[in-house]
Amino acid sequence: MTYRALHRQFASIGNLQHAQAMLSWDEAVMMPRGGGEARAEALATLAGVVHNMISDRRVGEWADAAAEETGLDDWERANAREIQRIWRRARALPEELVVEFSRATARCEQAWRLKRAENDWNAMVEPLSRVVELNRRQAECLGSALGMDPYDALMDGYEPGMRRSVIDPIFEELKTALPPMIDAAIDVQREPMPMPGPFTDAQQAALARNLMRRLGFDFDRGRLDTSHHPFCGGDPDDTRITTRYNPDDFLESMFAVLHETGHAMYEQGLPVDWRRQPVGSSGGMALHESQSLFMEMQVCRSLEFLQFAAPIVRTSLGGDNDDPAWSAENLHLAATRVSRGFIRVDADEVTYPLHVILRYELEQDLIDGSMSVTDIPHAWDAKMTEYLGLTTAGNDRDGCMQDVHWFTGLIGYFPTYTLGALTAAQLFAAALPAGVADGVGQGEFGPLAGWLRSHVHAHASAKTTMQILREATGAPLGTDAFLGHVARRYGTVG
Amino acid sequence: MTYRALHRQFASIGNLQHAQAMLSWDEAVMMPRGGGEARAEALATLAGVVHNMISDRRVGEWADAAAEETGLDDWERANAREIQRIWRRARALPEELVVEFSRATARCEQAWRLKRAENDWNAMVEPLSRVVELNRRQAECLGSALGMDPYDALMDGYEPGMRRSVIDPIFEELKTALPPMIDAAIDVQREPMPMPGPFTDAQQAALARNLMRRLGFDFDRGRLDTSHHPFCGGDPDDTRITTRYNPDDFLESMFAVLHETGHAMYEQGLPVDWRRQPVGSSGGMALHESQSLFMEMQVCRSLEFLQFAAPIVRTSLGGDNDDPAWSAENLHLAATRVSRGFIRVDADEVTYPLHVILRYELEQDLIDGSMSVTDIPHAWDAKMTEYLGLTTAGNDRDGCMQDVHWFTGLIGYFPTYTLGALTAAQLFAAALPAGVADGVGQGEFGPLAGWLRSHVHAHASAKTTMQILREATGAPLGTDAFLGHVARRYGTVG
Repeated sequence: MTYRALHRQFASIGNLQHAQAMLSWDEAVMMPRGGGEARAEALATLAGVVHNMISDRRVGEWADAAAEETGLDDWERANAREIQRIWRRARALPEELVVEFSRATARCEQAWRLKRAENDWNAMVEPLSRVVELNRRQAECLGSALGMDPYDALMDGYEPGMRRSVIDPIFEELKTALPPMIDAAIDVQREPMPMPGPFTDAQQAALARNLMRRLGFDFDRGRLDTSHHPFCGGDPDDTRITTRYNPDDFLESMFAVLHETGHAMYEQGLPVDWRRQPVGSSGGMALHESQSLFMEMQVCRSLEFLQFAAPIVRTSLGGDNDDPAWSAENLHLAATRVSRGFIRVDADEVTYPLHVILRYELEQDLIDGSMSVTDIPHAWDAKMTEYLGLTTAGNDRDGCMQDVHWFTGLIGYFPTYTLGALTAAQLFAAALPAGVADGVGQGEFGPLAGWLRSHVHAHASAKTTMQILREATGAPLGTDAFLGHVARRYGTVG
Repeated sequence: MTYRALHRQFASIGNLQHAQAMLSWDEAVMMPRGGGEARAEALATLAGVVHNMISDRRVGEWADAAAEETGLDDWERANAREIQRIWRRARALPEELVVEFSRATARCEQAWRLKRAENDWNAMVEPLSRVVELNRRQAECLGSALGMDPYDALMDGYEPGMRRSVIDPIFEELKTALPPMIDAAIDVQREPMPMPGPFTDAQQAALARNLMRRLGFDFDRGRLDTSHHPFCGGDPDDTRITTRYNPDDFLESMFAVLHETGHAMYEQGLPVDWRRQPVGSSGGMALHESQSLFMEMQVCRSLEFLQFAAPIVRTSLGGDNDDPAWSAENLHLAATRVSRGFIRVDADEVTYPLHVILRYELEQDLIDGSMSVTDIPHAWDAKMTEYLGLTTAGNDRDGCMQDVHWFTGLIGYFPTYTLGALTAAQLFAAALPAGVADGVGQGEFGPLAGWLRSHVHAHASAKTTMQILREATGAPLGTDAFLGHVARRYGTVG
């Protein structure tokens, strides 16, 4: 009885979240510049309406009553629990703060798109300070309502249950283990032959669609487009991934697309019976990232995959059969090249965690107030120098302005990238003995997709990331599988 | 005080309507087929939320109080009046009916896209019957609440104040005057040389953007894309027009784009101070159509415009300088060719009103229940035979299935096309003596755009279509200017 009311309410909320997802996609992919103000206002109004519908007093009452209700099945009970969790978080935030946050982040993000290109950090101090201030207020509201540390409370919004106390020891292990592995990888790696090019956007998009189709992306329920920053958005039945094309380096967009395809296949693999209900939605962002990195890093940067893909790549781009630059071995050298660089999204999987740890450390200082926005460039430079030996002084475009996240209000999100990398490695190691990856070299991805679907996608939000991981791999989250993978692939052991 | 509350409420409503407009655009232009169900649900939920916000009891109270409020300026008073009108209409409709209508029309439209291609009328009887039934219920609710005839009550939603009693004598005049003019035009016209082709979508789109820019379309606040049916949607600061490309007849998409550009320039010309308020929105659909037909029919199908455009057309499409098919005179012969055909959107301006009158007559029978959906193909064929001498028996694709309108719930909309044509002719005739069209042959559109902006666009919904027309032309709506224009252009007099 009350469960039905909950279900109906969240079906409507899910419908409005569909609108939010599509308008955000459109903003990044289609919207002309002049539409920004109207779009920011529309998204702010929608955020307010959705917030009011979630935090409605009756939702809490219905969820309490549903917890006592008999005759519900496991999924219905899990849905009621998930709704209660979401309700508690929404209830902690006043509507004005939610609306103001939506408006401020939309404007800050729009400004960032222009100002990053101009390397104009000063122009971003004011809008970003506003966003950080609103983030801090949210963290305090959530922390005191949920009895959590404020930064944990933000992180819990992206990966439910994740805490600094779990992450800190893991990140300390990585900070110790990775630097010598980076040195060793750089030391042993061979230089690939230069990649052919340039290639047009249309050529690269044709290649991307070709590979997406082979991996199992369903184009009747999704699209590939171009945006400033690659992402996966939309809806399980209308999953939209984006990329950007570098004419001189087709591997950049190719692997970005393979990454987003992993995200998309998670969405497309969610259980159809639970569309637009909280329990039927994808889980935390660490789990989501594990799906993209499983595809990109574990599967597609392997020599086996590239043996399958090399002729498709060469043919799609009109390459010469006799040119050894197109060989699987050469693509593999390029795809597994390790180097210390400025840009997180261009980083290899060995240096990547250090980019994340830098951001994780700085954003905690922003939230606890020990660092102000004006100090970011200096602090960024100091950590880049310490972790990767590179200075970003005077180059904020490739330093603290490179990522959209903080400018769009995502604080507490960065750690999920590295948690996702660890999870991906752990899942892949667990899947291997079942033989599901045996056909990768022949382009047979069905068994792999089936394993992910039954072990991960099918659970949607009925279980937490940590439950799913433990059931699929028999172990809690750790660094062993990831470090073992790095050691094997990059020749940094025996 | 209460006026501010009204203003705030309708700013939020305007923001959600922005979401509706963009999601509808996306549905027609971007959405993969599998996304249809989720989109229909999202649009239905949004329709319900918007309906509840408009029909809120407090809105009526605020609007009543605002009517008494002192210190409001003319626009604020007009806004309160317009809100009261909208509120009364919304108040007449129960929320369930609005939501169900949104859902039924979204599904029916999606089915139509597939079934029209298959010429499968039978598959559409059930979904269209449902839409017509919901339309009828709306007409009855609105009619009894507003004291209007039910069909008038539907029409009043598209063109406020428009009534059958105004339209019937005008349409009777056209039914009498046009058939002999069609005969005469066909009799005197010369055959154009065949148009060159085929041309790719990309070539035609480049030409379209070129002409749009020259006419004054602002690409910082709008886009051109491809869809199944050309339309103009979006927002005044993000106006989105669409077209479709026929490789063998570039003039089809060229004039469709020029038509939609007229719609778009109206949106882009609305007063910036009144964004997302009812008084700042475009007026009725007859006025909107007058802006597209002013551009397409009065301006762009003239010999003067084509003298300016011919070299741009030829250059954009890579045509041969010496080929006389590219001459302004030949383009003009093609652009003003009269013929009796099946398809409304392909019709010339002389036969077009008969297509509209046919639909106007049939849809009244659908609403008063004297005709059922199953009888449409037969009735359509009978009227096509009577008015245009063509049978559509067995060819519903090019008969009663050709237009999306009924399938998407637009009943009472068709007459606005012909009212728009009459209004366009009357406005153009009134503008001519001011000399604003003198530069058309040299590609100077600024004076024309300025005249439309000050006489039409700037008024937004602060005045009715009939007020705007009377003030701009000194006369009420009539057929004289239109019939005079047809007689001059098609050589059917003197």
